[in-house]
Amino acid sequence: MKIKEICTAPPVQEMRARLDSLQAAMGERGLTGYVSFAPANIMWLTNFANFVHERPFILFVPQSGTPVFLVPRLELDHATSRVIGEIEYATYAEFPAPVGRGWDDRLETMLEGHGPIGVETTVPLMVQHVVGDRAVQVDLIDRLREIKSDYELGRIAYACRLKSEAHAELLRQARPGLSQSEINRTIGKSVFEQLAADIPTINPFATTIMTLIQNPGVSHDPHNFSDLDMKMQAGGPHVTVFNSVLNGYGAEIERTFFLGHVPEQAKAPFDAMMEARRMAFEQLRSGAVLGEIDRRINTRFRERGFEEARRHRAGHGMGVTAHEGPFIADGDEGIAKPGMVFTIEPGLYIPGLGGFRHSDTVVVTDDGLISLTHGPEHIDELTL
Amino acid sequence: MKIKEICTAPPVQEMRARLDSLQAAMGERGLTGYVSFAPANIMWLTNFANFVHERPFILFVPQSGTPVFLVPRLELDHATSRVIGEIEYATYAEFPAPVGRGWDDRLETMLEGHGPIGVETTVPLMVQHVVGDRAVQVDLIDRLREIKSDYELGRIAYACRLKSEAHAELLRQARPGLSQSEINRTIGKSVFEQLAADIPTINPFATTIMTLIQNPGVSHDPHNFSDLDMKMQAGGPHVTVFNSVLNGYGAEIERTFFLGHVPEQAKAPFDAMMEARRMAFEQLRSGAVLGEIDRRINTRFRERGFEEARRHRAGHGMGVTAHEGPFIADGDEGIAKPGMVFTIEPGLYIPGLGGFRHSDTVVVTDDGLISLTHGPEHIDELTL
Repeated sequence: MKIKEICTAPPVQEMRARLDSLQAAMGERGLTGYVSFAPANIMWLTNFANFVHERPFILFVPQSGTPVFLVPRLELDHATSRVIGEIEYATYAEFPAPVGRGWDDRLETMLEGHGPIGVETTVPLMVQHVVGDRAVQVDLIDRLREIKSDYELGRIAYACRLKSEAHAELLRQARPGLSQSEINRTIGKSVFEQLAADIPTINPFATTIMTLIQNPGVSHDPHNFSDLDMKMQAGGPHVTVFNSVLNGYGAEIERTFFLGHVPEQAKAPFDAMMEARRMAFEQLRSGAVLGEIDRRINTRFRERGFEEARRHRAGHGMGVTAHEGPFIADGDEGIAKPGMVFTIEPGLYIPGLGGFRHSDTVVVTDDGLISLTHGPEHIDELTL
Repeated sequence: MKIKEICTAPPVQEMRARLDSLQAAMGERGLTGYVSFAPANIMWLTNFANFVHERPFILFVPQSGTPVFLVPRLELDHATSRVIGEIEYATYAEFPAPVGRGWDDRLETMLEGHGPIGVETTVPLMVQHVVGDRAVQVDLIDRLREIKSDYELGRIAYACRLKSEAHAELLRQARPGLSQSEINRTIGKSVFEQLAADIPTINPFATTIMTLIQNPGVSHDPHNFSDLDMKMQAGGPHVTVFNSVLNGYGAEIERTFFLGHVPEQAKAPFDAMMEARRMAFEQLRSGAVLGEIDRRINTRFRERGFEEARRHRAGHGMGVTAHEGPFIADGDEGIAKPGMVFTIEPGLYIPGLGGFRHSDTVVVTDDGLISLTHGPEHIDELTL
């Protein structure tokens, strides 16, 4: 089975179906309204990408009828140029604002007569303050986003192809001395140009292109990018960081690779990582308990003497962000379901030696996993 | 008076003074602890830049003694590589985590025996949930950040010089057909290269370089960047968007400019914008009420028939972000004080015609304003 790629904006029916599913979930919970603040949730329901700064964007969804999008007056044209689907707008003067004309005054008016009102657990206290005793803490949209529609799978498949192609090109170019800035100028630029060619109205607020490498000096510390002109070195392990959001949908493909030779001490952790990866690929099936997969991998790492080197879960969800729930993590006791998209990326990190992680983006179907990213996996293919 | 530029990391004494000022403010309020979640506040107190995702970073400051920084285990090496000043670490397994080993479990332990505890108004509900009844909503760090130390003024002055130089180069290159992607490749790249040359350990999580233009087709909509390959056109108004954070400190310089000729209808709004700008430069003095300045400008816009075209306040604060309080805004009734840094940027936006905004970054001193950014201002200098 192959997922058909899509790179066009969501049709109105898609947006309508999302709203319907939220309003149905609200009905089941007895909520008359729902306050959304998380940019990813607002993006999923409106196609508008905002970022959090002092001027709040708040989406209020009534249990039936049209959502109201509270935006600063300054952003009204910007919002209307991106929003897809039926929506009403409420604006406020500015932040801060004259007495009676602030975002909180408008929100108070919007909520009049409502209750109980669902509020997301990531909503800031100042928003909760306006909702007051009517608030019910619940993350309905986050739950709905876990299962991707066919449209969404097509968008993610498109993003994954672009990233897979860029990643293959990186491996072709890999050589000692190749620098991060040169990679940005060639690989990073080509991803952007391909995206812009396919999607002329690309949304910069919903696009983050990472084409990063970590050389053996820092690859043990997965979020350390302290040397922006880092260079590849003979040997390894190098780890790529190719997590991106391409115009509103995420993708991730990452590989551990070596240049010229594989240091002797690197062989066992690479092999342990590969075994964990095979376990995840085999066990991530519709009906599987997510936390169980992670626990079995952790047990195996412990048996092989790598307990200390394990620093993160085996995978995360992917959608309108490139990093979201559900998680393949001890502690996430949810069930894998068809339409869920995950990274599979168990990793090991050893100071003085380096990091060991491959990552692929996969979708759970009734007939097993489909990998949306593609690249070499084995140590001999990745010794360049 | 000239502000001496600084581009080195904050000395330990600087970080110590910040912590002392917070702990003194906590003492005055009777708080035994303070929970900070906003990345800008954590950056200001620790020199570590995080971004908000599902794995929380939380800084807990006791009224006396050493702060405790709660970070995911995965980020411990990353955090210690950046933090300056005395700090203790608490880590949690992962997000989500096995029962009893999550961020909330650790936070609960950290808060034991404390109360009342200050929590920021931007803290997510899930954090407030752990603090519970002991929570006092208060934004002490945001208030302390309003007055910049000499060190901070030096950092902002450095960032402002780089941006002023880049902006001058943009005006030199300006011509019909010059595209956003070409500007990124030349101007954007040169800012980054200068920064990387001056600061080899540049922090990418604390760096956002914007060297954007808006042509007359979209300059009426200040946050609309729907065409990433936007081109300059004959005439105008074009507006530049040069707001950046350079390795942890912000800067902003923006100009309205024309190519070849000034459309007749553009002259009156340009002139009204310039008058508003002069008013702000004259009135922003130590002791002035910030909201008053904005109200007078709005009144003047109304008198000149531009009430509808006014979409935002006259300016905002600048520091470890490039966009923060205090605000030169009707509704911010705070007092301007020496050491405060603001943008001055009253603007007018007319659909079908375009936007009119200059912005400069200025510091309030006992002897009046010092502008940290520099560029041409008058319509004849800006008709290129």
